[in-house]
Amino acid sequence: MTTSPPLALTLGDPAGIGPEIALKAWRMRAHLPAPFFLLADPDALAGAANALGLEAPIARCAPEEAAAAFAVALPVVPLRAKAAAKPGASEVGLASAILESIERAVALTLAGRAHAIVTNPIAKATLYAAGFKYPGHTEFLGALSAAAGHAGDAVMMIWSQALAVVPVTVHVPLAAVPALLTQERIERTARIVDADLRRRFGLARPRIAVAGLNPHAGEGGAMGREDVAVIAPAIAALRREGLEIVGPLPADTMFHAKARARYDVALCMYHDQALIPAKTLAFDSGVNVTLGLPFIRTSPDHGTAFDIAGAGIADPSSLIEALKLAARLAP
Amino acid sequence: MTTSPPLALTLGDPAGIGPEIALKAWRMRAHLPAPFFLLADPDALAGAANALGLEAPIARCAPEEAAAAFAVALPVVPLRAKAAAKPGASEVGLASAILESIERAVALTLAGRAHAIVTNPIAKATLYAAGFKYPGHTEFLGALSAAAGHAGDAVMMIWSQALAVVPVTVHVPLAAVPALLTQERIERTARIVDADLRRRFGLARPRIAVAGLNPHAGEGGAMGREDVAVIAPAIAALRREGLEIVGPLPADTMFHAKARARYDVALCMYHDQALIPAKTLAFDSGVNVTLGLPFIRTSPDHGTAFDIAGAGIADPSSLIEALKLAARLAP
Repeated sequence: MTTSPPLALTLGDPAGIGPEIALKAWRMRAHLPAPFFLLADPDALAGAANALGLEAPIARCAPEEAAAAFAVALPVVPLRAKAAAKPGASEVGLASAILESIERAVALTLAGRAHAIVTNPIAKATLYAAGFKYPGHTEFLGALSAAAGHAGDAVMMIWSQALAVVPVTVHVPLAAVPALLTQERIERTARIVDADLRRRFGLARPRIAVAGLNPHAGEGGAMGREDVAVIAPAIAALRREGLEIVGPLPADTMFHAKARARYDVALCMYHDQALIPAKTLAFDSGVNVTLGLPFIRTSPDHGTAFDIAGAGIADPSSLIEALKLAARLAP
Repeated sequence: MTTSPPLALTLGDPAGIGPEIALKAWRMRAHLPAPFFLLADPDALAGAANALGLEAPIARCAPEEAAAAFAVALPVVPLRAKAAAKPGASEVGLASAILESIERAVALTLAGRAHAIVTNPIAKATLYAAGFKYPGHTEFLGALSAAAGHAGDAVMMIWSQALAVVPVTVHVPLAAVPALLTQERIERTARIVDADLRRRFGLARPRIAVAGLNPHAGEGGAMGREDVAVIAPAIAALRREGLEIVGPLPADTMFHAKARARYDVALCMYHDQALIPAKTLAFDSGVNVTLGLPFIRTSPDHGTAFDIAGAGIADPSSLIEALKLAARLAP
C-alpha cells in the first residue's frame, strides 16, 4: 500500500485570518482525512498562536516528516523569508514570504513531495505593491505551472456538496462579458472541466450544464443573440466530441435542488452567474478548486478578512472543506 | 368589522396549467386566508375539471356573491368570450378571453369589488398573434392602470419567505444592461419599492440592499465603473431622501441566510442577478408581485407549462402562495 504525501498549505497573507484558520484546522485534525504541512515562518506562527490563545505545538520539519509529526504538532516547513505580521495590517514587506510559500508549494507538489496545494487567502494590494503582475492566485499558479513546462490554462471551479460551478469569464466588468464569450473560450473551458472531473474527481462521464447569457437563455434569440450564435454552437461541437453537455439553459431555473440533480457541474458565463448560486447555497463551505493544472489546488472560498484578523472569531470551515477535498482528489 | 372583497383570479392561457392549478387551489381552500373568484368561461372550466378528474362544483356568480359561495363551489365570474381550449394547444382565438379576464380584473379591483388581482400565466406568442403589444403582464397592467388615470410605473418583485428581489432592468439582453442602468432609473425603482413596502407590506422603514453590477461590486472602480459612477450616487441620493438603503454590495455574498437577515428586499441590476437567488432558494413558492400600481397584483412565479397541461401533475404551490400574499397585503 502506498500512502499519499501530505498536503501543502500556503501561508497566505499572514496579516489576514490565514494563520488563525490554519491553527484551528490543525486542532480539528481528527476530522481531516490526511495530514498537511504549512509553508510559513515558524516563529511568526508560534507568536500568532500565542496571541490568539490557540494551543498548537509547532514542528519545524521537512515535508517527508510532516505526516509523522501531524498527530502531536502542526508541521511547518520553514520559509526563507520572515513573515511576522500585525493582524489586519498587511504590508509590502510580507510579499516575499507570501510568494515564496506559493512557489515552494508548487515545486514540492510537482516533485511529488506534497499530494496537493491548499492556498490561504492573499491580498492583491499587498502583492501589487511588490510588483506582482497576476489578477490572482489562479493565474499565478498557471504561470508557475507553464514555467515548469506543464499546461498552464487554469480554470476556476467553486465546489461544494450542493453545487459545482465554473465561470467562463471571471474578474472582468459585466459590460466586457459578451465580447469575451467566444465559442473557442467556452469549448476550451468545457474541455478542461470535462478532463479534470474525469481525472481528479473520478467521474466516468461528467454531466456539464451550460447557462445561457441572457434572460431565459435569450428565448431563441429574441433577447440577445449570444445564446444561439455562440453558446449553442459551442455545446453542439462539444457534444460531437463526446462530452455529456447540455444547454444553454435559463440560468434562473438551473440551480434549485431538482435541477442540480441533473448535472455534475454548471458552466456559467460570468462571475456572478456562477458565484451567486454557489455562495447562496454554501456560503461557509465552498471550496475554490483550480482545474487545468498539473497538480491539484484548492482554497477556501473567502478572502483575507483583515477586519476580523486577530479577533479569534475566524471560521475555519471553508479551509477544512478545502483540505478535505484536496485529499480526496486524484493527483 | 369590514370584510375585504374576494380576490380576482384571472384565466391565464386556458391551454396551460391555469385551470388545473385554479381548481387545485380551490380544493385546498381550507389553507387559504381569503376567498377568490375566477374570471373564466364556466363551461370550459367545468369541462377541464371533468377531464382532469378534479371534483369541483362551479358557481356562476357576481363578485359580490363569491365569498358566500366559496365554501361549497369554485366561484366563476363569467367572461363574455368563450375559452374552451385543448390542453397544450394555445391558439390566437383564446386571446380575447385571456385579455378580457385581465381587463375585468383591473376594473373590478379599481372599483373596490375585488381586494387584489392574482394572474394565471399567459403565453406571449398567443397574445402577440392577436396584436398584443406589451412585453408581459406587468407592462400591460401598468398601461391599464395609466389608462384609468392612475400611476402606471409597474415594478416587478419576486417574493418568497426566504427572499424578496426587484430587478431594475428585466427582459433585455445582458449586453444592454449597463447602458440602461441610469441613476434616475435606479432611484425611481427604489422609491416605488420603498413606498409599496410601507403601504402594502406594512414595513415602517423598509431596508433595501442594492447589488453591484460588476464582480465584487467593481472593487472601487477597478472592475467596471458603473458601481461607483451610477449606483453609488443613486444610493447616496436616496439616503438623503431618508430611504434605508445600502450598497452597492458584491452580489455573490448578499444572498446567504446571514446576509439576507440584514434587508427586506434586494434591488438587483438585471434579471438573472435577481432571479437566480430567488429561484434557487424558493423554486416552487416564489410569488411575482407588481409594485407601483393603484392595486395589488400577484402571480405564480412560473409559466403556462404547456408541456404538462392536462396531465394532472401541475403543482399549485406557487399560485397558493400568490393568493395568500395578495390576501395579506394592504389594498
